[in-house]
Amino acid sequence: MAFAASVHAKAADLIKLAIEMTTAADSGHPTSAASLAHLVTVLMYDQMRFDPTRPADPGADRLVLSEGHSCPIIYAAAADLGMTIRFGGATRPMTRQDALTLRDLHSPIDGHPNPAEGFPFFPAATGSLGQGLSISAGLALAARLDGIDRRVYCLIGDGESREGQIWEAVDFMADYRLNEVCPIFNCNTYGQAAHVSHQQSPDVAALKLKAAGFDVRVIDGHDPEAIRAALREHAVYAQNLKDRLFAIVARTVKGWGFQEVMGGQGHGKPVPKKDEARALAAVDAKAKEVGAAWSAGDLQLKAPPSARRPTPSAIMAHTPLSLTDALKKFGQEKALAKGVLAPRKAFGYALRMLGHVNTEVVALDADVGNSTYTEYFADDPVLRQRFFECKIAEQNMISVAGGLASGGKLPFASTFAKFLTRGYDQLEMGLISRFNLKLVGTHTGLGPASDGPSQMSLSDIAFFHAWSTAKQADGKPVMYVLNPADAYCTFALIVAMAQHDGACYLRAMRPDVPLLYNDKTAFTLGGHQVLIEGKDVLIAGSGYLLHEAKKAVESLKAKGVNATLLDLYSLPFDGNAIADLATKNGGRVVTVEDNFGGSFGAAVADALTAHGGSFTLKQMYVSRIPKSARVPEDELQYLGLTADDIVKTAQGLTGGKGR
Amino acid sequence: MAFAASVHAKAADLIKLAIEMTTAADSGHPTSAASLAHLVTVLMYDQMRFDPTRPADPGADRLVLSEGHSCPIIYAAAADLGMTIRFGGATRPMTRQDALTLRDLHSPIDGHPNPAEGFPFFPAATGSLGQGLSISAGLALAARLDGIDRRVYCLIGDGESREGQIWEAVDFMADYRLNEVCPIFNCNTYGQAAHVSHQQSPDVAALKLKAAGFDVRVIDGHDPEAIRAALREHAVYAQNLKDRLFAIVARTVKGWGFQEVMGGQGHGKPVPKKDEARALAAVDAKAKEVGAAWSAGDLQLKAPPSARRPTPSAIMAHTPLSLTDALKKFGQEKALAKGVLAPRKAFGYALRMLGHVNTEVVALDADVGNSTYTEYFADDPVLRQRFFECKIAEQNMISVAGGLASGGKLPFASTFAKFLTRGYDQLEMGLISRFNLKLVGTHTGLGPASDGPSQMSLSDIAFFHAWSTAKQADGKPVMYVLNPADAYCTFALIVAMAQHDGACYLRAMRPDVPLLYNDKTAFTLGGHQVLIEGKDVLIAGSGYLLHEAKKAVESLKAKGVNATLLDLYSLPFDGNAIADLATKNGGRVVTVEDNFGGSFGAAVADALTAHGGSFTLKQMYVSRIPKSARVPEDELQYLGLTADDIVKTAQGLTGGKGR
Repeated sequence: MAFAASVHAKAADLIKLAIEMTTAADSGHPTSAASLAHLVTVLMYDQMRFDPTRPADPGADRLVLSEGHSCPIIYAAAADLGMTIRFGGATRPMTRQDALTLRDLHSPIDGHPNPAEGFPFFPAATGSLGQGLSISAGLALAARLDGIDRRVYCLIGDGESREGQIWEAVDFMADYRLNEVCPIFNCNTYGQAAHVSHQQSPDVAALKLKAAGFDVRVIDGHDPEAIRAALREHAVYAQNLKDRLFAIVARTVKGWGFQEVMGGQGHGKPVPKKDEARALAAVDAKAKEVGAAWSAGDLQLKAPPSARRPTPSAIMAHTPLSLTDALKKFGQEKALAKGVLAPRKAFGYALRMLGHVNTEVVALDADVGNSTYTEYFADDPVLRQRFFECKIAEQNMISVAGGLASGGKLPFASTFAKFLTRGYDQLEMGLISRFNLKLVGTHTGLGPASDGPSQMSLSDIAFFHAWSTAKQADGKPVMYVLNPADAYCTFALIVAMAQHDGACYLRAMRPDVPLLYNDKTAFTLGGHQVLIEGKDVLIAGSGYLLHEAKKAVESLKAKGVNATLLDLYSLPFDGNAIADLATKNGGRVVTVEDNFGGSFGAAVADALTAHGGSFTLKQMYVSRIPKSARVPEDELQYLGLTADDIVKTAQGLTGGKGR
Repeated sequence: MAFAASVHAKAADLIKLAIEMTTAADSGHPTSAASLAHLVTVLMYDQMRFDPTRPADPGADRLVLSEGHSCPIIYAAAADLGMTIRFGGATRPMTRQDALTLRDLHSPIDGHPNPAEGFPFFPAATGSLGQGLSISAGLALAARLDGIDRRVYCLIGDGESREGQIWEAVDFMADYRLNEVCPIFNCNTYGQAAHVSHQQSPDVAALKLKAAGFDVRVIDGHDPEAIRAALREHAVYAQNLKDRLFAIVARTVKGWGFQEVMGGQGHGKPVPKKDEARALAAVDAKAKEVGAAWSAGDLQLKAPPSARRPTPSAIMAHTPLSLTDALKKFGQEKALAKGVLAPRKAFGYALRMLGHVNTEVVALDADVGNSTYTEYFADDPVLRQRFFECKIAEQNMISVAGGLASGGKLPFASTFAKFLTRGYDQLEMGLISRFNLKLVGTHTGLGPASDGPSQMSLSDIAFFHAWSTAKQADGKPVMYVLNPADAYCTFALIVAMAQHDGACYLRAMRPDVPLLYNDKTAFTLGGHQVLIEGKDVLIAGSGYLLHEAKKAVESLKAKGVNATLLDLYSLPFDGNAIADLATKNGGRVVTVEDNFGGSFGAAVADALTAHGGSFTLKQMYVSRIPKSARVPEDELQYLGLTADDIVKTAQGLTGGKGR
């Protein structure tokens, strides 16, 4: 009883602080926070093995708050525990006063979990719902690879559990028997606009979990003893029942202790200042009613097992890696014999090579490893255990990759570029988390011509480009977008991606295309290549259409037009350098790309207009929705993107001849 | 037995044609197609009520091929049935010869279902997996609203059923008791790269469906009698057991009849030309083994119930709709009294008004109707039945909207703009389907400042802008992107969206902002507004930051700089008009927006460089990842996007004074 009394007392205190901080901020979610108070108290004060002074210690158990809006309850515990935070540049224990800065511009505690702002207890930014269980799975996999006995607790809202990604994560956990993760469903019966559906009731949630192979405990989420018993049972599963899965479904009360004050559910609404005292008193009354009484020693913080992450192999800068060396190492010397190689294969070789030189490199795929060529990595006996097959569930894949990154790994996640679209929201949350994510999309642009538009990535460059315009604290872009045109460039950029600390997206196209470069050509994130120097018109392309552009430049040459051929393989690029090149070509520019507008051509337009001066730019891109064509050449014709079309466009600018 | 013998004979014929057409195309998925042969035969030749000469008749049952890559089996049946297709501009019965044009540029039968190219039997483009069940649900809802007794059959691959969206759709069906939809899980045990997980086995699939409240029949998917019995049982559910749900799980064989010829699974691989005869013979042998024997009359095509869609109320062009009229009608005259109104509220009023004047208008939300103000529609007793609460499952919401559009409705789907990202892939499939989709994202850009970046849409404009650069057959953009700055503009653009036949996305921001316009101001898709005419520098903004831009222009005026203030509320816009405005302002342009780059500013850069001439453009946008701030003003300061920042940028161009 002493344990229960102390939990009630602490939970009530945390709820009160959660009320105060959201009232101070005049926004936030105290009622959702309160529904978690007892669960969080038993977790953070008794069951989780962690040290508040080192909340992200490699050996520490982790808590992922999938329902991110409930964060005030965690902040309240952190303030009470004096957890280490970073505030205004300095690292120090969190205070109650800090908690009251919730959501302020100068506060590290954001409205939703945002570890990058100075609260490292959270392993990931959350707040777009449904992603936490996948992140938890990634954290658990990282610990496994490091030989660390880590448990990961994931708090999931009932309304949130409508998101299909939760069930993708459940299946993924089942595939990998990831019972280090303890999913805890917080069933307070309310969504934002109304009650949750019967489909998200505790009973149905339990049935769904059982159907997926989990043992489930349905508990009262405000009963300290029941919570502790369930968490202890989970620990037994994690330790001794390696082949079985375990989950907790907790019935809870939204606004525990002060729901009458809110006069209904009050999702996302703070207690108005005028009602604050009444709300605090109501919580006290409720605490008294359930027998709350704090007694030091009833709850015992558990120290984390001592653990150290393996020293990462020095990033491979010291070993110059080349495509030729990789092919030699893997007995594939003949791959280049015909002078063509699919960039997706070069990606597969590079990934496998990286796996050998850096033990942190892990790979994920979504059931298309025999198309993306991540199978080169997956089938290598040395690397196999670092490959994670996510099946056809891209949202889960991206978030698992995020969890692996949070756990210190260097994840490469791949599928067809079109299907990465499925995980754009998850990717955004990964970027907000500042995860070191590497995405590779294959079958890009018009590559899958015969399959038709449902398989074509045509908006990917525009989407990723937007993120590339934002800067990290170090001044580098939040994301690099890479579109290599040949196998050498692909290989070199995959290596550069691994060396870079930050997110990158690379398009590794499907078709076998001619080699344009060699092992010695230098490629950098942010770089570009001038392949042919001219003076009459600048023709810039990348990826698949660089080959059409090259044919066009050769054809123009025969007509007396000296065009410059530019490989714009990176976004962002050096805008001034491109503007100078344009100036040298009379201010006449043609861009060509196998995706919609607002992409590479728009980035060139940005650069030219930012530079200032007189320019004319004709952008050639996919300007209608494609359809199937048996061969890419037909598709290019359909869309007006052949070498001949480029020639005509360039002639329109130059008046048909050199100047 | 005669029935079974005829089904086997027909199924074998369809498989053979599927083999031939994929071999002719040298790509495609004959093995997946073959696993569906018996299911498709019983459906299309015996149980579905449809007329091949009018495959998209309002009264017809529909078939949604969620696993789009299996389409050759449907094309084979369509060729055999002489189904109506549109080929080369003319409408005529499909032939066997047509089937052999699979995937050709000049063929209407694409590599994946693509009804827009001339094969209207498919209600939607599919091929990005996991979306068909949601589309089916939308089709069923549309039929309900129209009082039509329509059944919708949805074929779902087992590997595909890993996509969480399938389970979002299952929950949605349960909420609405949508047993007109018959989900059929095709369990051929193979994904692309390997066997499916145990989690996608027939047994686990059946358990999951039961947990969600479905009655499930697990059958042999190559047993004609079992298939017919299950489909007949479904019909009983659809007709008489309105409160119960029904699903079929079918065990099937990938490459039925010719799997040995493929030497393994052969996903996505056609039979090589050299093996074609052997594969066809193997299918014949298998057919003989199971007693195939065709006998006319064993299978009976079922005519569709005669049905007519209600004549849509004439789009409201004849009734000029105004915000003031709407407020009067709804007894909300005071809403404008303070000179401010949140655009999201104007959206809510417009949506409700449209609901009253057009019976096709339907609304969908994802548990945030009290924030997006779709509750104005949902709470109206006249409109309530046309509102669909999708709960926290955005992927399903977008695809359900697609199904409703396919069924003739005019769907408006809304949630926070950030969470629409979750459904970008679904939206893209809707655009490929040419659905008349209207999306409204609220809490846009920096509006949710205190919530932090997890709730902010910063890449939405760039993503939608990419789609806006593609043109429909009528020359209009595939998508309009709209960013109104006040309530009048929002109201007018929502009406314009409804009048336009094509997809639109509108940002309806959260904060109360000053009114800039009135009922009589004209706003058009593709339009813009000059608010203040100047000559020294063009300052273009839209949405939230137009208000900062206005302050900046007023402040510049006091400093002797005559700036032009442009409301760029639409993408695309008239680029030449904007370039002319820029020229009139000395070629000096500043753009400002509360999202990442590659968006409005980039579209201006596109316009200026396409026009040609000498311009200098300074783009101001969100150039770092935001964090929480209690008030938007702090956030603007943090990001350098205040009126003062705009003034300084403009002064940088003008040299601090007018010219």
